[in-house]
Amino acid sequence: MSDTVDTYRWPHKHLLGLEDLSAQDIRFVLQTAHGFEGVSTRSVKKVPALRGKVVMNLFFEDSTRTRASFSLAASRLSADVLEFSAKGSSVAKGETLVDTGRNIESMGVDVIVCRHPLSGAPHNLSRAVQCSVINAGDGQHEHPTQGLLDIYTLARRLNRDDFALSGVTVAIVGDIAHSRVARSNLHGLLKLGAHVILVGPSTLLPQGFRDLGCELCHDLESVLPRVDVLNMLRVQFERLQNQAFPSVREYTQFYGLTAARLAKAKDNVLVMHPGPLNRGLEIESAVADGPNSAILEQVANGLAVRMAVLFLVTRASEPITAIR
Amino acid sequence: MSDTVDTYRWPHKHLLGLEDLSAQDIRFVLQTAHGFEGVSTRSVKKVPALRGKVVMNLFFEDSTRTRASFSLAASRLSADVLEFSAKGSSVAKGETLVDTGRNIESMGVDVIVCRHPLSGAPHNLSRAVQCSVINAGDGQHEHPTQGLLDIYTLARRLNRDDFALSGVTVAIVGDIAHSRVARSNLHGLLKLGAHVILVGPSTLLPQGFRDLGCELCHDLESVLPRVDVLNMLRVQFERLQNQAFPSVREYTQFYGLTAARLAKAKDNVLVMHPGPLNRGLEIESAVADGPNSAILEQVANGLAVRMAVLFLVTRASEPITAIR
Amino acid sequence: MSDTVDTYRWPHKHLLGLEDLSAQDIRFVLQTAHGFEGVSTRSVKKVPALRGKVVMNLFFEDSTRTRASFSLAASRLSADVLEFSAKGSSVAKGETLVDTGRNIESMGVDVIVCRHPLSGAPHNLSRAVQCSVINAGDGQHEHPTQGLLDIYTLARRLNRDDFALSGVTVAIVGDIAHSRVARSNLHGLLKLGAHVILVGPSTLLPQGFRDLGCELCHDLESVLPRVDVLNMLRVQFERLQNQAFPSVREYTQFYGLTAARLAKAKDNVLVMHPGPLNRGLEIESAVADGPNSAILEQVANGLAVRMAVLFLVTRASEPITAIR
Repeated sequence: MSDTVDTYRWPHKHLLGLEDLSAQDIRFVLQTAHGFEGVSTRSVKKVPALRGKVVMNLFFEDSTRTRASFSLAASRLSADVLEFSAKGSSVAKGETLVDTGRNIESMGVDVIVCRHPLSGAPHNLSRAVQCSVINAGDGQHEHPTQGLLDIYTLARRLNRDDFALSGVTVAIVGDIAHSRVARSNLHGLLKLGAHVILVGPSTLLPQGFRDLGCELCHDLESVLPRVDVLNMLRVQFERLQNQAFPSVREYTQFYGLTAARLAKAKDNVLVMHPGPLNRGLEIESAVADGPNSAILEQVANGLAVRMAVLFLVTRASEPITAIR
Repeated sequence: MSDTVDTYRWPHKHLLGLEDLSAQDIRFVLQTAHGFEGVSTRSVKKVPALRGKVVMNLFFEDSTRTRASFSLAASRLSADVLEFSAKGSSVAKGETLVDTGRNIESMGVDVIVCRHPLSGAPHNLSRAVQCSVINAGDGQHEHPTQGLLDIYTLARRLNRDDFALSGVTVAIVGDIAHSRVARSNLHGLLKLGAHVILVGPSTLLPQGFRDLGCELCHDLESVLPRVDVLNMLRVQFERLQNQAFPSVREYTQFYGLTAARLAKAKDNVLVMHPGPLNRGLEIESAVADGPNSAILEQVANGLAVRMAVLFLVTRASEPITAIR
Repeated sequence: MSDTVDTYRWPHKHLLGLEDLSAQDIRFVLQTAHGFEGVSTRSVKKVPALRGKVVMNLFFEDSTRTRASFSLAASRLSADVLEFSAKGSSVAKGETLVDTGRNIESMGVDVIVCRHPLSGAPHNLSRAVQCSVINAGDGQHEHPTQGLLDIYTLARRLNRDDFALSGVTVAIVGDIAHSRVARSNLHGLLKLGAHVILVGPSTLLPQGFRDLGCELCHDLESVLPRVDVLNMLRVQFERLQNQAFPSVREYTQFYGLTAARLAKAKDNVLVMHPGPLNRGLEIESAVADGPNSAILEQVANGLAVRMAVLFLVTRASEPITAIR
């Protein structure tokens, strides 16, 4: 690992999207996560890195998992965590996001973790405040910590300890058009040198993605033999009302990952899913719970990745020695 | 106290019900609670026993008191506490309880405290995860920490410092059929040697309980002279819609504990209630707030008992010296 | 500062309203806040003053800001914080406030921070419990910590480091009749020697306030040249349904603080607002975000003031040396 980064000046006070990061940034945050991974398996799961700092979860959309993962990551770094639910808040009284952010910052909050149904909302917030902003999912735009934890998981399982991914082929399968998970994965994977195939029905797979440097395909079965990783997106019923989505039954027939279909892929193909699972729809239980699945590792790695992100954004522009 | 247990190998990774515990187990957890009781009256109400451990409150039914009691108990042991509300969670997105549990566990949670409207749900959860599960009330089945805190309270007030209850007579009064509190109390009390009388209208008092070794009675006044403890169950309006419940007025007339009725019991009879009180319904204010009442002691003891349970399940199968 | 209080026996176990405090009490709590102000700008924003103590936020009305401010203040003092939401709680099951309070206290809570839609509710609570009660806003009565942070902010900005306010003129503008913020400011300001002008339409400005020693005025423009501070109350749409409120447009025309109107005041007039802002209604953005505005300082100072209040009520009747 001659090119491993050991000391690094992390340049980003905010983490808004993987599109904004360099390959070197991504590799450094993943190496930092690797250093933190051990904390979660200790008897005392705590390090004092963020003691006396305050992390606020500012969620304008429900998300128990992501919120819990950030909370636990912050606690493990010994930060104080404050939950802010948009319901019943001053937001409901008509306050703007910028005013909300400035107020939160005035209370001495160091990091705002923001989820918002509108694409770009965390970016607006970041321009209004001096503290750090982490995008925990904005509309159909990006979900950068999900992208990072997915990449971390596949790199570790494929023994790419330097987080370089040349020669690795990843298929992302499902509703690409509306998926922030797909978008963050795509940006990160391409920067690290992976080959990415986006797979889905034509209504959910805009041709424009081809310009980013990835392959597009409507036929899942045809790509199975040549992929190292299958990242199965969640069918988001709650967002489907007016969308050009095929019937659920038809979707499963063409894009569901069944055990029969998995048999057509490489033996050691890695199966990923951002959760929560729709068992029997985009993924069959035998696959989700089988030996190829890295789904629960993704959840576990999410903590290490979020610890790394919280750690780095609070030390932006300081020279940091990689944690190992 | 020649038979006091001093060192003990607590055998249970989960606490699902008092039915599963031996008399020795119950006495050991109550002794451990006794050791923790002092922590709550200290100026600094903290011990480092669970530092770096994570306790998650996974509540599928509202319960501010039980939730708060577990939170405070965990905080007093220096654990990190994460609240998980089923509303707006991935559960609402259709995830199964087992998937939710496995995800929580993957985030490094050490103890899941689970309340669920379905009997047996915490048991299913416990079979799916490696971490500890504590049942905080499952349907009409058990509420073991409430049973333990009730027994702890009555044993302490009756000066049974070894938590042996032979010769003690306890009446549990109310809707026995649908009460998880009654069921947990019953199992615990019988194991410790108490005589238990279940009192209530015939529609709410299934004959089958007799087989467990307790006495059944429909006439509260007739048992008053010979009981040491009266545990008055709460009338649960919110669960009564389709149940064979007498009118509230009639219930109070026959089973409400008034001051006049209390006068027919032993002078030092202990009055208990799991809360929240319906004043004037199952219990009169003069009784609830009077000298025989142990109601607020139950709440206070709940913390010590829950500290003990959290402590023991995280040390299952290790030899533990009783905390005094 | 010959008359600065250095050691003091803070006499109040509860903080229910500024009406109950002496001028000396108010000056001591503000001096204590001044001592705590520095904690919020440290790298590690923690002092161990309340370690092992438990603060419960018992909010019967939504208020994200005040709740967050108390949470953060308590965390900074190293207390454990427990959130209690009235929705879905035993309160919803029909429990009285007094029973709720007694139960909370039995769990070992040291301070209850209570917001309630009914005036006087925290007072009832304080009479039922042994622990401390802080009023975080009761109906249209008082919001004492808001009053304290407003006074702290204006005194600091006017270089009144001893918190004596003789010679200072403060206008409070808006719906005086229904504002607990106005009421707490009024009591505090008058005790410290300020001259207070209440400004608003006659329907929202009861004549009785004159008896407290303040000036009443319906014409904002006429008072502008002689005020040092303008405290612009929020138009509370959510409380206006049946009230004698002018149309919003008319309100803005007569009482909104525009840049044009601000030009008629002293150059260094201080502009305050309790938030959240209705931009363009009671205050124009150019004013809210301009150099005269102390709005975000109010938020920041709220933490220091609440730290001071939490600290003092837990040390009632002990001699305390002022924190500097």
